[in-house]
Amino acid sequence: MYQLIDGKATSAKIKEEIAVEVKQIIEAGGKKPHLAAILVGHDGASETYVASKEKACQLVGFNSTLIRLEDTVTEAELLEKVDEVNRTKDIDGLIVQLPLPGHINEQNIIEAILPEKDVDGFHPVNVGRMVIGLPAFVSATPAGILELLKRYNIETSGKSCAVIGRSNIVGKPMSILLSQKTGYGNATVTLCHSRTPDLKEITLNADIIIAALGKAEFLTGDMVKEGAVVIDVGITRVKSDKTKSGWKLLGDVKFDEVAPKCSYITPVPGGVGPMTIVSLLRNTLLASENTIFKA
Amino acid sequence: MYQLIDGKATSAKIKEEIAVEVKQIIEAGGKKPHLAAILVGHDGASETYVASKEKACQLVGFNSTLIRLEDTVTEAELLEKVDEVNRTKDIDGLIVQLPLPGHINEQNIIEAILPEKDVDGFHPVNVGRMVIGLPAFVSATPAGILELLKRYNIETSGKSCAVIGRSNIVGKPMSILLSQKTGYGNATVTLCHSRTPDLKEITLNADIIIAALGKAEFLTGDMVKEGAVVIDVGITRVKSDKTKSGWKLLGDVKFDEVAPKCSYITPVPGGVGPMTIVSLLRNTLLASENTIFKA
Repeated sequence: MYQLIDGKATSAKIKEEIAVEVKQIIEAGGKKPHLAAILVGHDGASETYVASKEKACQLVGFNSTLIRLEDTVTEAELLEKVDEVNRTKDIDGLIVQLPLPGHINEQNIIEAILPEKDVDGFHPVNVGRMVIGLPAFVSATPAGILELLKRYNIETSGKSCAVIGRSNIVGKPMSILLSQKTGYGNATVTLCHSRTPDLKEITLNADIIIAALGKAEFLTGDMVKEGAVVIDVGITRVKSDKTKSGWKLLGDVKFDEVAPKCSYITPVPGGVGPMTIVSLLRNTLLASENTIFKA
Repeated sequence: MYQLIDGKATSAKIKEEIAVEVKQIIEAGGKKPHLAAILVGHDGASETYVASKEKACQLVGFNSTLIRLEDTVTEAELLEKVDEVNRTKDIDGLIVQLPLPGHINEQNIIEAILPEKDVDGFHPVNVGRMVIGLPAFVSATPAGILELLKRYNIETSGKSCAVIGRSNIVGKPMSILLSQKTGYGNATVTLCHSRTPDLKEITLNADIIIAALGKAEFLTGDMVKEGAVVIDVGITRVKSDKTKSGWKLLGDVKFDEVAPKCSYITPVPGGVGPMTIVSLLRNTLLASENTIFKA
């Protein structure tokens, strides 16, 4: 019988832990961690994400600032706003909610954020430091997955791991983090993608599978060996006549088929998703303590 | 019958190409590319490496400057020297020959070099940019290996690749570069290391093997499938009564056993080694053209 990895409960527990830490910091005369978010335009999904980040900040006792800009904002204006936040001493972390309107070069914006405030971990300096094995802000989803593995005492050392999907924010950093000699790593990782011809052969040999390719129910039961650990990063919204909203969320894993073969598996929703906000909070706490770039 | 990948001949050819480019730049009124090297102390191997880098610069028509510091130099003094070179407009690229004396933190020195002059590609900004897929100075050995694969028309797309060794300057960047969607990549890479339990099973399935773990003659004939491409990054000096010098160089591959099974294989010496200096020259040329960080 498989065990469900409960991201919702784990993230709630970690939020409580962070709230305690914040309380102690303030009691010791320290300052409240402060996260700023820039939201450009009024995209529905982005509004939802930013709102839940703000709510999480309140819950753990952070200050949060939401900076709203219309989607007519120019790249120069947005860069100026980023610079302003960079120079605001009280703000510890800054995220710019993606995607941005097409006329703005996202990479330029990401690189304009001070690495010391880049709690999303998207800046090349943080990516590079992570790869080299230096202290860094690690991007939220891979950090959240590592935290889930730790909390469930799932061994990674000496295990074979298939990461499916080579995105900059999940697949690539995940593959490096699990390979590292330091930290929660020492797995032998195969990074799989759209040009991998014999994917099933690889996943069938994997002790741990991270499905992060963004295709609903891609990983099927015949692709997974008995006892595997399966982490589902995908989240695709599809129409459904069985839910009140008319929509349901699917992961990259065909859960009903795959789960019975697993030792551990994350559900969608309620698996990896809730952990990403927790990673963001953790990074903001680290930023306020100024520990990453001091080391 | 296997084909030998001749790094020596390839590097000579590329040096000629670079020399032609430099000549054209100068004829068009441009400036000579200029590489500076800082050498601390008098370590024999480091002296040799720096001398061959200087010689290569002369050969292709670069200016080169060697800055010698005694091994009693303090970290602060070395940082000051790096800063001075950073501010010297005529110098396009700067390398600090490693290893440094134990009292100096190498990472601090690496991070002090301007990313725009970091032609070794060791600065976190360049590592991060490489991972994300942005233009970057790629560290010399992985860049040299990619160049060899290209020059010999060895297909990587859709191939399975085993990288053995997870160092910051070879294994990790190599694994990412071969996985990339852009450039000479699209391979399915498994990054193997000292904690990989079933290495032979992985290498036996690999179309391309990059041996970069630093153990003489580690990869044996029984670990390689028929028709594999084998790239040997290792270089270990061992005593020998068969050479005039009393020493010989061994790679990470047991050449006599492995070569007969290969389609392509690099020798040691004369394989990957000569390509690293060429990568450094290429990076210096890019630095002088200021193309990487403009993009």
